[in-house]
Amino acid sequence: MSEPLRPVRWDDATIVILDQRLLPNDEVYLACRTLDEVCDAIARLAVRGAPLLGVTAAYGMALAAATSPAGTGKAMHRDLRLAGRALVATRPTAVNISWAVERVMSRVAGVDDPEGLSEAVLAEAAAIEREDAEAARAIGAAGAELVPDGARILTHCNTGHLVSAGIGTALGVIETAHAQGRRISVWVDETRPLLQGARLTTWELQRLGIPHTLIADNAAASLMAAGQVDMVITGADRIAANGDTANKVGTYGLAVLADHHSVPFYVAAPLSTVDPQTATGEDIAIESRSQDEVTAPLGVRFAPEGTEAANPAFDVTPGRLIAGIITEAGTVGPPYRQSLRRLRRAR
Amino acid sequence: MSEPLRPVRWDDATIVILDQRLLPNDEVYLACRTLDEVCDAIARLAVRGAPLLGVTAAYGMALAAATSPAGTGKAMHRDLRLAGRALVATRPTAVNISWAVERVMSRVAGVDDPEGLSEAVLAEAAAIEREDAEAARAIGAAGAELVPDGARILTHCNTGHLVSAGIGTALGVIETAHAQGRRISVWVDETRPLLQGARLTTWELQRLGIPHTLIADNAAASLMAAGQVDMVITGADRIAANGDTANKVGTYGLAVLADHHSVPFYVAAPLSTVDPQTATGEDIAIESRSQDEVTAPLGVRFAPEGTEAANPAFDVTPGRLIAGIITEAGTVGPPYRQSLRRLRRAR
Repeated sequence: MSEPLRPVRWDDATIVILDQRLLPNDEVYLACRTLDEVCDAIARLAVRGAPLLGVTAAYGMALAAATSPAGTGKAMHRDLRLAGRALVATRPTAVNISWAVERVMSRVAGVDDPEGLSEAVLAEAAAIEREDAEAARAIGAAGAELVPDGARILTHCNTGHLVSAGIGTALGVIETAHAQGRRISVWVDETRPLLQGARLTTWELQRLGIPHTLIADNAAASLMAAGQVDMVITGADRIAANGDTANKVGTYGLAVLADHHSVPFYVAAPLSTVDPQTATGEDIAIESRSQDEVTAPLGVRFAPEGTEAANPAFDVTPGRLIAGIITEAGTVGPPYRQSLRRLRRAR
Repeated sequence: MSEPLRPVRWDDATIVILDQRLLPNDEVYLACRTLDEVCDAIARLAVRGAPLLGVTAAYGMALAAATSPAGTGKAMHRDLRLAGRALVATRPTAVNISWAVERVMSRVAGVDDPEGLSEAVLAEAAAIEREDAEAARAIGAAGAELVPDGARILTHCNTGHLVSAGIGTALGVIETAHAQGRRISVWVDETRPLLQGARLTTWELQRLGIPHTLIADNAAASLMAAGQVDMVITGADRIAANGDTANKVGTYGLAVLADHHSVPFYVAAPLSTVDPQTATGEDIAIESRSQDEVTAPLGVRFAPEGTEAANPAFDVTPGRLIAGIITEAGTVGPPYRQSLRRLRRAR
């Protein structure tokens, strides 16, 4: 296995970000030295994936503090609030960004000298990064218990080392089951429009040496009908209090198909992705992205000029279609309003 | 509206084929002067679509007759049988090829002089072309009755003028409903892996002036959940005696989703696509195409080198998920074993 990936790291008032848009062909790192550059890297998907967005946003706050010209604690608190707002606005569906921003802000609530503030923000960002790696390990261990030997697992989008400070979420479960010696194989949904499955999940599974087969998203249904899928595991961008889960567009369709074919459908995510403020899926804003992602995938134009496209980046899977939500505190089943609350309280 | 499209035509011992792989960017015609060239154009998808494949195969037989060096009727019959076998082998799932080959062979069964044979094969091919255009008109009229004013119709793959000697099948229904003044709009599935929706259906709908919006296939489920799809209409590559329908991969998933959301799911196809010799969907061979169509869409490589892909070109939708099959003899509903048999007998 190759070097562990570091898709985001803090290096002396610079956030170094692996530009995931250029993978798997090129491994290029962006050096972000201003909050604007960080927001841009998030909005343009150079960095992506719910847990990693939390880590990136936290370091974005640290960068805002480090580069703030404010001379007083009060002015710096104002700069941090503005920075948090800018970060949250980059991706409306991913809850980990606002979670990280709020965590940083409440950590520094009482700190009033500028230097102490800078240090406290950075310390909190580093704690978030460390805890994220630990959570990923725990999610992997909890999820691996659900994976039978020989399982053929279907996954959507990309949820491994590239989306986390650790081994990831759904792909972390797969990595852990493989490391424990289970002879698994993976069906990789290519995940249109941005092809995170075709570009990134295949690349991660190659690095890990886990057998996998890429499919067009359209092939998932007939694979299930042929009995060739034993379970589906995906990540999540936001989980409502009742278990309704926003994730990459196409996830909801997969969950309906899994239900139709009696294939268990699991979601793997850290508790930071569960948002108790969001009551149900109806309260989740769905980010609509550029039409070009559909008409001209990765810059290559396939549709005629003038073609209109709709491009919702996410969809919402009702909790009732989810067999289990795998978190760092264990796996819970429906009804999720109760089980997720219990889990949060136990923390 | 522009000139009517002629995706295939016979011109003095040459089959002129619009190369659909280059659409919508370039309108290039291939002049096929040998059977090999015709088989190649079919296998490489320069020409595609169930009804048009029947027309193309029939003219392929005419070309085989016209270019046969055989001096006797007997030798020429043997050449025609070999030509038919080569044509049928190009695409195993599409039944219209074997249907057209058999129809030509039985038309010329008693003809023994070489010149008469050539003429008879060509006359039969021309009849198949003419009848296909008429069938398309009748399918359009029958299907349009099912389309309410204001309907938002979702379709998959490409099923218009490019797949037929006439207006097509599912897209022909849409064109007819629009021509009758119904204010419809179309959700166009891009249809990975070969993007026939993004490249061809958008192009046809633009020519026809019918409002449409392109989507990644993954977005269909959430559109249905949001109540934004009133009906689904697709074409078919082979319909078994019991109504099980092979069509472009992704169709089966759409049918399951439509069922889950109580959206009616229709199939539009000429009776030549119904194969009474195929008892159920389990008897339909599913063509598996090159992995490159998934790993490197239209020649642009997205997946890492060495990535394995599975690429079934079709899937099978059970008749029980189909609200109606729209044919040139009218629309029938389940149970299809009975209703399709009645339809064939009435012809």
